[in-house]
Amino acid sequence: MRRPIIALLSDFGVKDPYVAEMKGVILNICPEAEMVDITHEIEKFNVKMGAFVLASVSRYFPEGTIYVAVVDPGVGTERRAIIVKTAKALLVGPDNGLLMLAAQNQRIKNVYEIKNPRYMLPKISRTFHGRDIFAPAAAYLARGIPPENFGPEITNYIVPTYGNPVIKGKNVKGEILHVDGFGNLITNISREILERIHLKEGGFLKMRFEDKVFEFRLCRAYGEVAEGKPLAIIGSHDFLEFSVNLGNASKFFGLKIGDKFELEKL
Amino acid sequence: MRRPIIALLSDFGVKDPYVAEMKGVILNICPEAEMVDITHEIEKFNVKMGAFVLASVSRYFPEGTIYVAVVDPGVGTERRAIIVKTAKALLVGPDNGLLMLAAQNQRIKNVYEIKNPRYMLPKISRTFHGRDIFAPAAAYLARGIPPENFGPEITNYIVPTYGNPVIKGKNVKGEILHVDGFGNLITNISREILERIHLKEGGFLKMRFEDKVFEFRLCRAYGEVAEGKPLAIIGSHDFLEFSVNLGNASKFFGLKIGDKFELEKL
Amino acid sequence: MRRPIIALLSDFGVKDPYVAEMKGVILNICPEAEMVDITHEIEKFNVKMGAFVLASVSRYFPEGTIYVAVVDPGVGTERRAIIVKTAKALLVGPDNGLLMLAAQNQRIKNVYEIKNPRYMLPKISRTFHGRDIFAPAAAYLARGIPPENFGPEITNYIVPTYGNPVIKGKNVKGEILHVDGFGNLITNISREILERIHLKEGGFLKMRFEDKVFEFRLCRAYGEVAEGKPLAIIGSHDFLEFSVNLGNASKFFGLKIGDKFELEKL
Repeated sequence: MRRPIIALLSDFGVKDPYVAEMKGVILNICPEAEMVDITHEIEKFNVKMGAFVLASVSRYFPEGTIYVAVVDPGVGTERRAIIVKTAKALLVGPDNGLLMLAAQNQRIKNVYEIKNPRYMLPKISRTFHGRDIFAPAAAYLARGIPPENFGPEITNYIVPTYGNPVIKGKNVKGEILHVDGFGNLITNISREILERIHLKEGGFLKMRFEDKVFEFRLCRAYGEVAEGKPLAIIGSHDFLEFSVNLGNASKFFGLKIGDKFELEKL
Repeated sequence: MRRPIIALLSDFGVKDPYVAEMKGVILNICPEAEMVDITHEIEKFNVKMGAFVLASVSRYFPEGTIYVAVVDPGVGTERRAIIVKTAKALLVGPDNGLLMLAAQNQRIKNVYEIKNPRYMLPKISRTFHGRDIFAPAAAYLARGIPPENFGPEITNYIVPTYGNPVIKGKNVKGEILHVDGFGNLITNISREILERIHLKEGGFLKMRFEDKVFEFRLCRAYGEVAEGKPLAIIGSHDFLEFSVNLGNASKFFGLKIGDKFELEKL
Repeated sequence: MRRPIIALLSDFGVKDPYVAEMKGVILNICPEAEMVDITHEIEKFNVKMGAFVLASVSRYFPEGTIYVAVVDPGVGTERRAIIVKTAKALLVGPDNGLLMLAAQNQRIKNVYEIKNPRYMLPKISRTFHGRDIFAPAAAYLARGIPPENFGPEITNYIVPTYGNPVIKGKNVKGEILHVDGFGNLITNISREILERIHLKEGGFLKMRFEDKVFEFRLCRAYGEVAEGKPLAIIGSHDFLEFSVNLGNASKFFGLKIGDKFELEKL
């Protein structure tokens, strides 16, 4: 029989006791859980980055995975704790949009507020609901407690809005969604949008950011340009990325998360 | 049947082979062990920080967990290798105080020196007892070898002393125990001490550090003050913490681990 | 029955979705796999460092372990994807030398190119073969698919060459193989070479790097010199290391990976 998978994401880092305390709580409630770290290095309080990473990763995990995600600047305030049931999985975390990009990809079925103290630690701290509410909820779900037992269904949960690219002729206005550890810049421009402006692999593009203009090619592999040279590429999440072969595109272009740029097919 | 849990803590970081070598050794001896990382990002050689994190985390792990903790500036010298048997768990590591804050919380039953070469790697390096002595000891304990088989019982093990807060009227002299990844400053002032000076949630306090003075409120949630503003809060370990809403308190106040400050109820 | 072990190494870091996506893919194909992280903090694109860490760690893992290692600056170019079958284990990764230091230690039996699309994800990105090719290959190997099913045997795989130390009387010219997180400098000078120049523990040595000269002792433990003082020691991988007691040798000496130095027995 397969062990239930609990996949964890947070902005806690790993030098503090927080993540391990969550794991201890989970092992107490559901010893057979298979815990897998997604990451705990989400930028502190950056709910958008957490949502992006959770949505990327959850496309590759097995059906039935239980996700527990905590990027929670509103901990201790009125923000609610929720369980999202989708067609594929269960997601546990704060009601601040963090879970919803992943949940929407999987088709949302029901959202429940976590209110039943039976499935929380006996004592709830004001600052660490990851350990006191979310980890126990994930562990009880892994033991088979149905999500509707945790509290009432809600429909007014928070759904984040993200900028969509704007197309005008051969031009697209886009935004940086994520900067990865290599310095690659993941944009919000999908493969479909590139097709609409007829930009093909091998073709050239112009990119404007503030008063700077760059020209480079849409490649199939980093190695198609010389070391240190910029390129565009359709990345592993099917979005356009700006990269530098064996280098750091974020430093090269001076772009970071949330920056807006303009792209033109040449 | 439940798999034995081995929880690992060290100051090794994860970019080097050290942690994985320990895990390989454990899997060779006890393939069914469930290994859980507490953290490997303890500040290099900072035994006090390791002891604090281990004590925090171990309150949340299941009974019967085997802890192996290595922050070991004295490796290769006369310092002893020990196993601590408590009412709840087994702890393995160097005899330098690292294990004892956690062990005291669980009531210490016996402490054994690890001397039996049968439960070590055949070849002992001078610099890496984590791999050669502590990991094998944890793995053999997980296989059910009783701790008394590893060597003689000892009673003169090292117990670290930590500064206790000093109360004088409405004033307390305290110390910073830990700075977490968010920059939160965890002090050695417990909830009980705050009650003794009649400082209640909602009340104000004055904090002196060197020639600087700060005034702020004891809150129930970070969000009770504006972004970037300081506050005090009773943290998830039931100690007073200094924080900044959506900011970094360590930078804001200029305080770090070991710093002493004075606190006054207003 | 023992769960198959898959040990993962990469230069992906853990703040991005990449590592977790590989794990999701593995769990989909082989739910009973026991995944163990070696490290994901190899310096970006540093194949030599990856090869050193993989070779160090793999000496301590059980027979039958499946290693999947990805430090892959040539992703998307003509570089091949391979499986190496040794007398002890299976290794999966790019054909750029990364796997070969570990594989040679275990005696190489056969090397296969991964070409069979049946054991890849249905859609192969241009930038992330870790997820699309290497992770599925490791997972199918863990399910028992024999390596020869993945593609043709090859013999012209890439084997990296590393500088060997040069001995001249009491002098050795050596090189820094690795700088660990403590700042310890691991050299390519083995215990055997020290015996050949008659340098014994307790003896003194002179080390020249560029125009600087240092004199210090070959010790048995860091604690044999005062805090902040340099020493040499035979490290846990049986190579000579330069260290500073409770300090950072890389900063002290100004040496980094790849630097060449001269050593003289005094």
